[in-house]
Amino acid sequence: MRVLYHLPLSPFARKVRLVLAERRLPFELRLEKVWERRPEYLELNPACTVPTLVEDSGLVVPDSAVICEYLEEAYPDMTLLGLNMPERVESRRLVKWFDEKFFAEVTRNLLWEKTMKQALRLGAPEAGALRAGYANLKQHLLYIGWLAEHRRWLAGENLSLADFAAAAQLSSLDFIGDVDWSVSPAAKDWYARMKSRPAFRAVLADRINGQAPPPHYADLDF
Amino acid sequence: MRVLYHLPLSPFARKVRLVLAERRLPFELRLEKVWERRPEYLELNPACTVPTLVEDSGLVVPDSAVICEYLEEAYPDMTLLGLNMPERVESRRLVKWFDEKFFAEVTRNLLWEKTMKQALRLGAPEAGALRAGYANLKQHLLYIGWLAEHRRWLAGENLSLADFAAAAQLSSLDFIGDVDWSVSPAAKDWYARMKSRPAFRAVLADRINGQAPPPHYADLDF
Ligand SMILES: N[C@@H](CCC(=O)N[C@@H](CS)C(=O)NCC(=O)O)C(=O)O
Ligand SMILES: N[C@@H](CCC(=O)N[C@@H](CS)C(=O)NCC(=O)O)C(=O)O
Repeated sequence: MRVLYHLPLSPFARKVRLVLAERRLPFELRLEKVWERRPEYLELNPACTVPTLVEDSGLVVPDSAVICEYLEEAYPDMTLLGLNMPERVESRRLVKWFDEKFFAEVTRNLLWEKTMKQALRLGAPEAGALRAGYANLKQHLLYIGWLAEHRRWLAGENLSLADFAAAAQLSSLDFIGDVDWSVSPAAKDWYARMKSRPAFRAVLADRINGQAPPPHYADLDF
Repeated sequence: MRVLYHLPLSPFARKVRLVLAERRLPFELRLEKVWERRPEYLELNPACTVPTLVEDSGLVVPDSAVICEYLEEAYPDMTLLGLNMPERVESRRLVKWFDEKFFAEVTRNLLWEKTMKQALRLGAPEAGALRAGYANLKQHLLYIGWLAEHRRWLAGENLSLADFAAAAQLSSLDFIGDVDWSVSPAAKDWYARMKSRPAFRAVLADRINGQAPPPHYADLDF
């Protein structure tokens, strides 16, 4: 069975979980505490980040972006990038936007400060980081809302990897109750459509160390 | 004529310059001072980073990773990722390694502290960042050397995007005289092979604000 090494709140691992489910590729989740730097895991992924995918063939694919490009090439029955060049450029542009910019400006400031930093006993969340994170999140929600008002899906007419990249970041933050959806009704409506996809089911059923997310997290009519 | 918006020391812009030259795709370089946030440029690339490529057709392609994937698909006469899945995974893994990990651990600590930060009058370089940057650079050179001793090129038997991603980061640092090549003879030998490729010529001829790099920068027998 295909294996995905992950951490439950990693937005990059979530992106791959959603994409594998959307592609109907079954997989087994395995928890990898990257901070332990297990030698066996370092051999699979010298960067020692999650996610890493291991195919039945034994092929090891580290890094969420590398995994998503690999899946696009290895399982061409479905494209999540688009059928023509402008669509593919726009999907990939937005994937980078969410993986890099949204992550650096929002997720790292909120999720990292509130969870990982405490788990690693590196101290309390920094007020400045939280403030910046919430302010940036508002701007990003407005941008998502703007896209969703002008297009059917974030990158255009078709559902794409951009939608999963954005939803992955947001679902991690939503799990810790950090997303104020009232900021943008259009973003909220788009996220409701994402949540109601079968691919989202496993992510919505997540419990972490027995801890449940806030009630609206899994509610399709939040 | 194809246009590439760039900054001369941006390692991401350098990667694309090298790749366009390797693919023999002619282009015109245009300097973009991203910190000025020109409205016309923000329309091309809302993330307001360099590089951005504009094709003759008018197609706008922002972000070095998106550009490289685009070129691979739009000009399939040459592949820089490899012909089979394991090769493609390994090239992409290493591209991410250099774009993300090498950049964060080395280039940002040295190049950003020494050039951009001063240009933007954000203060003097921080001693801690420089110390970390040099220490990390040594480890990365050893890793590059290790790869180059076990393989013909960094990702395997064939020259790939991984070689250009690594060479781009190193050439920016070499321009400011920050690379101690004596750390790894194998890395130095690999970089000498990269420098002697025709695709490298324009980058080696760079002058920035009339300033020349150290003499060994363009020397093929450094
Ligand atoms: N570029 C990587 C980033 C993955 C990443 O940063 N994962 C985090 C968890 S969200 C991690 O494993 N961090 C551990 C570390 O950086 O040492 C990807 O897209 O997969
Ligand atoms: N993911 C982007 C990163 C590009 C990037 O960070 N470029 C820097 C120059 S090396 C930049 O434009 N920085 C301006 C900014 O971040 O505002 C890429 O690969 O093109």
